[in-house]
Amino acid sequence: MLEKINLKRKMSKKDYEKEFDDLAAKVGALQRALRDAQIPVIIVFEGFRGTLRGELINKLLSVMDPRGFRVYSASKTTEGQKTQPFFTAFWQQLPAKGAISLYHRAWYFLKNEHDVGDPDEASSWYEIEHEQINTFERELTEEGYTIVKLFAHISEKKQEKNSKKIDKIYGNGWGNLAPGGVEGIDYKAYYKVYEKMLEATDTVEAPWHIVPLEDMRVGVIAAFNIVIDTFERALQKKKQKKAGTIYFKKDSAVPNILSTFDLTKAISKQDYLVKLKEYQKKLESLQYELYKKKISTIIGFEGWDAGGKGGVIKRFTSALDPLGYAVNPVGSPNDWEKSFHYLWRFWQHIPKVGEVAIFDRTWYGRVLVERVEHFATVDEWRRAYQEINDMEAQWDKQGIIVNKFWLQIDKEEQYKRFEAREKDPNKTWKITPDDWRNRDKWDAYVDAVNEMLYRTDTKAAPWTVIEANSKYYARLKVLETMIARYEKVLK
Amino acid sequence: MLEKINLKRKMSKKDYEKEFDDLAAKVGALQRALRDAQIPVIIVFEGFRGTLRGELINKLLSVMDPRGFRVYSASKTTEGQKTQPFFTAFWQQLPAKGAISLYHRAWYFLKNEHDVGDPDEASSWYEIEHEQINTFERELTEEGYTIVKLFAHISEKKQEKNSKKIDKIYGNGWGNLAPGGVEGIDYKAYYKVYEKMLEATDTVEAPWHIVPLEDMRVGVIAAFNIVIDTFERALQKKKQKKAGTIYFKKDSAVPNILSTFDLTKAISKQDYLVKLKEYQKKLESLQYELYKKKISTIIGFEGWDAGGKGGVIKRFTSALDPLGYAVNPVGSPNDWEKSFHYLWRFWQHIPKVGEVAIFDRTWYGRVLVERVEHFATVDEWRRAYQEINDMEAQWDKQGIIVNKFWLQIDKEEQYKRFEAREKDPNKTWKITPDDWRNRDKWDAYVDAVNEMLYRTDTKAAPWTVIEANSKYYARLKVLETMIARYEKVLK
Repeated sequence: MLEKINLKRKMSKKDYEKEFDDLAAKVGALQRALRDAQIPVIIVFEGFRGTLRGELINKLLSVMDPRGFRVYSASKTTEGQKTQPFFTAFWQQLPAKGAISLYHRAWYFLKNEHDVGDPDEASSWYEIEHEQINTFERELTEEGYTIVKLFAHISEKKQEKNSKKIDKIYGNGWGNLAPGGVEGIDYKAYYKVYEKMLEATDTVEAPWHIVPLEDMRVGVIAAFNIVIDTFERALQKKKQKKAGTIYFKKDSAVPNILSTFDLTKAISKQDYLVKLKEYQKKLESLQYELYKKKISTIIGFEGWDAGGKGGVIKRFTSALDPLGYAVNPVGSPNDWEKSFHYLWRFWQHIPKVGEVAIFDRTWYGRVLVERVEHFATVDEWRRAYQEINDMEAQWDKQGIIVNKFWLQIDKEEQYKRFEAREKDPNKTWKITPDDWRNRDKWDAYVDAVNEMLYRTDTKAAPWTVIEANSKYYARLKVLETMIARYEKVLK
Repeated sequence: MLEKINLKRKMSKKDYEKEFDDLAAKVGALQRALRDAQIPVIIVFEGFRGTLRGELINKLLSVMDPRGFRVYSASKTTEGQKTQPFFTAFWQQLPAKGAISLYHRAWYFLKNEHDVGDPDEASSWYEIEHEQINTFERELTEEGYTIVKLFAHISEKKQEKNSKKIDKIYGNGWGNLAPGGVEGIDYKAYYKVYEKMLEATDTVEAPWHIVPLEDMRVGVIAAFNIVIDTFERALQKKKQKKAGTIYFKKDSAVPNILSTFDLTKAISKQDYLVKLKEYQKKLESLQYELYKKKISTIIGFEGWDAGGKGGVIKRFTSALDPLGYAVNPVGSPNDWEKSFHYLWRFWQHIPKVGEVAIFDRTWYGRVLVERVEHFATVDEWRRAYQEINDMEAQWDKQGIIVNKFWLQIDKEEQYKRFEAREKDPNKTWKITPDDWRNRDKWDAYVDAVNEMLYRTDTKAAPWTVIEANSKYYARLKVLETMIARYEKVLK
């Protein structure tokens, strides 16, 4: 894409000023329109070293309302963040609806940057593939995010020239705030790497725009025009009904997985108590081993109402050091959470190194309650299977142990438990009209659970269905499953 | 307080089990009641090393609903957090209304711990005074937080005994998750330090409770009883109308500070443009110096509607590297923000080392709009002057440069600007019915502003009133003021 760009164009100060004011007013008005339309925007600004694109960014900021605007740079990623899955910080920083994030360097850390000898990039955290980037961006655009991707282009000569200017302004040691150093940079090698990257990540949803910065004025006007154009398209698009990508066809036959489990499995109280103690002791020492080896865990619990999630979680956590885990309860999203991508709130709770994050209900709400209750459109929840698989694969790739449990009881058992809860004054709080309403939709939920298990039981993040008519049996099986996984990992 | 405690009591397993179930049910029920009453709770658990209080915490967790419950430890404070004002992480971690935070070691890092030879504490970050702790806790309790403070007490003999047990379980290197190491710890020296700390921080709002952990069963029952008692009191207290502490009496004469400024001050456009360029250049290099020296800045802007805040902020920020600052717009708090202490949301935006945090409207909303519109009670806003002074003093103590600007225009000038905005199609969005309504309360605002300037213009965080009838003059004075402060600091 780079060779098509004419770097020789120049612009007089007079022409520039004439155009600039007009474009500035337009950008300002569009920013307000995007806010009113509640469209979140991400501006990605990559490019050659030494383009002085900071100046351009400042121009852009100077015409925007700084409220609802945040500037980030992946160059400022902390050591702590580098212990987490690659996109974690980017997920956490997503703009809310109607807000704008601008990245002076974003997620474009590419494997082959190593080859051009940039020592900064010599960390496995940076080993990011073109495909993963495309997936991430697609997942955002499909949820209504607008991504503007700008690439600052200059010639080798200009880079050398700017390099001197940069040295003069900043000297050495300006650290994060400095435009990337240019000394010893092999322009031609970078050119090839960038060319490859631009081609591989130039998508319909998030296309690249090359900004020629050989002449700053030309660059500013070009960038403003691109921003205006993309903002206008975003407003247009919002008005149309969008069809998302469906990865799994509706018509593929989903087997009735739930029916294959034997719910009569049980264990006596006496055996249960003996084994529970034994398992908890084992878990305690495994947690210590995992902590030492810096291996984190994410465990998700789903299941029927009154399936016994709470009881299982308590037996599991009471074996652990309280400083090493957190239980994240998941309810329907509040208004603040709703102003982000639906997966955003789960990325807030990635465990710290060596720790355990437990989710009491999970990101599978999208394909369970949101599907059954029509809170999500068919497009949205069908798309979610792949989005969730992608997310969990990223966690797995970072070495996090991911396991999901479905607590399976039958309809009669649920009825018994509901009745018992209503009668016990210590437990009535556990039962709400919602629970009875959900029960009426049992069959719809069976379909949803079967499809969920079918499509998202992956090697990276397996599902374990727990026969939970017997609470004792269920608790032990969860502990057994985790012990087995831990022992396999530690072996 | 420690010597009064009888460490010799023991409890049989049978007695313990009889009492425990009853207390467990009570704790569970009270947790739900607190959630319904929307009372946020913080449980602080300090104590001697080697008390095995982790076991007790696990007992407590095992009877609570893990939803709405978070466990923290100040021992896990990261290096990044240690570059921020001491209480920053604690403010950020505050539980929302109806939730509980438990600290396995909280903010009780005391100066004289150095004296007992604990190398972990040898950092200036830990230099925290009893008084600051009391202030912090009082500010929380006055906003409705309940604080349960438990101190785990054991004898020297028991400490030695537990030490061996701990070594056996954890070996070395268990790191953060380990109960503090006990080797080489001078029990008697610690005893004195703790005694002093307990006395100095035992307050009416947040009293200490000593938990004898010589016998774990005795300790568990004692701790459960304390928790139950405190929870019950909290529910009682919520029902009563509470009178807060008033630090500044109402009747003290507040001078009309605003009337002393000469609003005819102005500057020609030509002079303005020349000086603006000069100042911005200076600011740019000062920002670089401050970044290198790791000196952060917090700037707050307040002023009349149409006072020109936006224009000032733009001229200021356009001199800065966009990666080194953030503009935080402050509107009325959303529902999520409302579920915390009113200062919570500002602690989320403490600048990173060497960076600049700009607030477009600030924490002074409490004593301005909330006072005038009666969103805060008289008690609440009168209390706020001191709370805000305390907060800013903490920032200053950490080396952050804090400056606050009030943009002062007169009523006629505001009218002119409102009219102009209504006529200009590019600016009508800037004016809302609220602006006209606020204008009707001009005199009430004058009183509020005068009292704010009078009570919160401190050496740590001075106010600069800007004569802003002339926009040019105002912008230059803000830049001048910051340049002067920066040059003084860097000298």
